[in-house]
Amino acid sequence: MPGFFMLVTPQSMHFAEPLPLASGRTIRGYDLAYETYGTLNADRSNAVLVCHALNASHHVAGVYAGQPKSEGWWDNMIGPGKPVDTRRFFVIGINNLGSCFGSTGPMHTHPDTGEVYGADFPVVTVEDWVNAQARLLDRLGIPTLAAVLGGSLGGMQALSWTLQHPERVRHAVVVASAPNLNAENIAFNEVARRAIVTDPDFHGGHFYRHGVVPKRGLRIARMVGHITYLSDDVMNAKFGRQLRDGLALKYSTQDIEFQIESYLRHQGDKFSDYFDANTYLLITRALDYFDPARAHGGDLSRALARAQASFMLVSFSTDWRFSPRRSREIVKALLDNRRRVSYAEIDAPHGHDAFLLDDPRYLQVVRAYFENQVAHG
Amino acid sequence: MPGFFMLVTPQSMHFAEPLPLASGRTIRGYDLAYETYGTLNADRSNAVLVCHALNASHHVAGVYAGQPKSEGWWDNMIGPGKPVDTRRFFVIGINNLGSCFGSTGPMHTHPDTGEVYGADFPVVTVEDWVNAQARLLDRLGIPTLAAVLGGSLGGMQALSWTLQHPERVRHAVVVASAPNLNAENIAFNEVARRAIVTDPDFHGGHFYRHGVVPKRGLRIARMVGHITYLSDDVMNAKFGRQLRDGLALKYSTQDIEFQIESYLRHQGDKFSDYFDANTYLLITRALDYFDPARAHGGDLSRALARAQASFMLVSFSTDWRFSPRRSREIVKALLDNRRRVSYAEIDAPHGHDAFLLDDPRYLQVVRAYFENQVAHG
Repeated sequence: MPGFFMLVTPQSMHFAEPLPLASGRTIRGYDLAYETYGTLNADRSNAVLVCHALNASHHVAGVYAGQPKSEGWWDNMIGPGKPVDTRRFFVIGINNLGSCFGSTGPMHTHPDTGEVYGADFPVVTVEDWVNAQARLLDRLGIPTLAAVLGGSLGGMQALSWTLQHPERVRHAVVVASAPNLNAENIAFNEVARRAIVTDPDFHGGHFYRHGVVPKRGLRIARMVGHITYLSDDVMNAKFGRQLRDGLALKYSTQDIEFQIESYLRHQGDKFSDYFDANTYLLITRALDYFDPARAHGGDLSRALARAQASFMLVSFSTDWRFSPRRSREIVKALLDNRRRVSYAEIDAPHGHDAFLLDDPRYLQVVRAYFENQVAHG
Repeated sequence: MPGFFMLVTPQSMHFAEPLPLASGRTIRGYDLAYETYGTLNADRSNAVLVCHALNASHHVAGVYAGQPKSEGWWDNMIGPGKPVDTRRFFVIGINNLGSCFGSTGPMHTHPDTGEVYGADFPVVTVEDWVNAQARLLDRLGIPTLAAVLGGSLGGMQALSWTLQHPERVRHAVVVASAPNLNAENIAFNEVARRAIVTDPDFHGGHFYRHGVVPKRGLRIARMVGHITYLSDDVMNAKFGRQLRDGLALKYSTQDIEFQIESYLRHQGDKFSDYFDANTYLLITRALDYFDPARAHGGDLSRALARAQASFMLVSFSTDWRFSPRRSREIVKALLDNRRRVSYAEIDAPHGHDAFLLDDPRYLQVVRAYFENQVAHG
C-alpha cells in the first residue's frame, strides 16, 4: 500500500498492585507503555502480542501523527496488508519494565522512596516481563493470544509465554532466538556491562543525581553489541578495508582510518545519546538469565513439555549471535514433545540483524504462517 | 626431555642510526631486546627467527635462572628436542619496537626531547618491524634465515619477510594468520582502542606524566580481545552457563554471576597490571595496516610474486579470528606464483589460541617441516 501511513498513538496503563519478580523482590505502582494496531474482534480471538528485543519498544508499527519518519521498528512486518496483517489481527506492542522508552524504568521515581530508581531498579527477567504483559492483556480483556511473536530477546519472551501461560497462547513465532545464551553471548554482554559500570560517570548507577551520563561506557557497549549483530560477510561487503578518507593512510592510532571505525563510532555516539545505562544492564542481564531448561537439569525437552502452542521458528544462516543451531535445539525439543512446529532457516547474508530487514523469503514465510495457520486457529 | 630446563638470558642491542618508517617518520637511538637459543653454525645457515604476536616478547623459549616458572611463550615449540630443535637450529626471538617488554617503546624517553614518548611514539607497521629485525640480523652477522616463523601477527611478519627481504629467507612458517584484517577484525580492535583512549586516565596517551594507567580501558580491551581468541566450543566446554557461586542466582547486574564473567574479569585485571596502553594501540594498528596486497590493487597473488621462500601454512578449524579461509587465501596466492607450499588445517577445538597450545598433530606437522624441509635447505 504505497503512500499509506498507519497513524498510531502510544498509550499507557498504570498498575498499582505489586508484581512479584523472579528475584523475590516486587515492583508496584508501575506503568506499561503500549500500542495497538487493528481491531479486536467480537470473540477476542485475534490478538497478537509482539515482544521487543534490546533496543526497541512498544512502537512496533505505523507512524506518529506529524512525524512521517517515525516508523515502528517492525513496520515491514506488521500493518495493513503486511505479513502480520492488522486488517485481520489486533496487534499489541508493549514496552518492557525497566526499559527507557516509556514503561517504568530506572530513570523513574520509586513510589516508596520518592527517589529515582537508578541502580535500585529491581533486576527483571524474561519471565517477569511475560507476567507483566499478561496483566496488561487481562486489563485489555484478552484471555487468549492468537499468536505471540518476537525476534531475538523478543523470541525468548514468545517462547516463555508458551511455558508460563500455555493455555493463553495458540501460536508462538520465535525468530532469530535461542533457548539460552551461550558462554560467548554472556561474555560479550559482560564486556558491555563492565564498560558501563567502570565509566567514572556511572556513579554506581546513580548518575542521574550527578547530572551526567556514562556515555563512554554506552558507546563501547553499543560498538561491541553492533559487531555481534552483523555477519562477517555483510561487514566485509559494506565496509571491507575501505579507508574513510580515500587512499592515503594517516598512520594514527586515535584518528579514524577505516570506514568500519567511522560506522561503529557513529553507532556508539547515537546510542549513548538516548539509551539509559541502567536499562542496558538490566536487559543484558535478562538475556543472560533466560534459560527455561535450567529448572529441568538443563533438559530443554522436559522444559518445553508444558507448551501447548503451535510454533514457527525462523533462523538466519549467517547469524552468529543466535545461530541456526540454537533454533534447531528449540525445534528438536518441541518435536520431542510432539508439538506442531514449522521451521525456516533463511539463507541471508545479514547476520542477526536479518530479523529486522526486508528479506522477501523471510517476510513471505511469516506471512504464510499467519495466513495459513494463525488465522485458522 | 623431562626435568630439563634451557636457561636463557635476555640481551639488548642499541641502534643509533635512524630507521625510516612506513609513516614517513624515523626512529633513532632505539634498543631491541632479543634472546637466542642454540648455536649459530660455521656457515651461518641455521638461523631461525621467531616473530611475536600481540601479547608476547623476545622471550620465546627456555626459563630465566632462578625463575623455574618463567617459560617462554612458545616453549612447547622451541627448544632442545622440540619441533624447532635448538640442537640443530640457532633460534632468535626479538621484541618489536613499540612493545612494553624490553625494546624501545612508548614508556621510554625520546632521545631528542628527553621526554617519555607516550602518544608521540611513532606508529610502526609490520614492515617497520621486519626492517628493524633485519638490522639486528645484520649486526649478528646472519645473512640468511633458514626459516622465519610466527603465529597470528607473528605470521604476518614471517610473510612480510619473504616480500621485503626475499633473498634472505629460505622458509617461512605462517601459523594462524591472515593476509590482512577483515572489517570485523578491525572493528574489534577499534572497540579496544576506544575503550583505552576514552578512559579518563589515558590523558591523550601521556598518562605516565599523571602517575596513572588507563586500567579500565585496558581491562575492556583485553576482555574483548580474549573472546576473539577462543572458540565458541571451547568457551562452552570450559564455562558454559556455570554459575560462579553454585546454584543460586544473585539477580545482580554488577556482581559476577557466571564463571565466564569471572574468567574474563580476571584476564582483564591481570593484563591491565602489566601491559602498556600505548603499546596496545600501536600493535592493534600494525595489525589493521598490514595488507601486502594493498599496493597491488588488492591482488594478493601479485603481491606475493616477490617471495622466493618455501612456505608452511597452518590454520585451526575453530579459529574465527583468522579462519582457515584466510590461510587458504595465502596458499592460493602462493600457488598462483608456483611457490612451494605445505598447508595443514588442524581440526582443533581451541580457536585462535590453538597456535600456542599442545595439539600433538600441530606440533608434529611443524616438527616434520623443520626436520624434512628446513634442515635440508
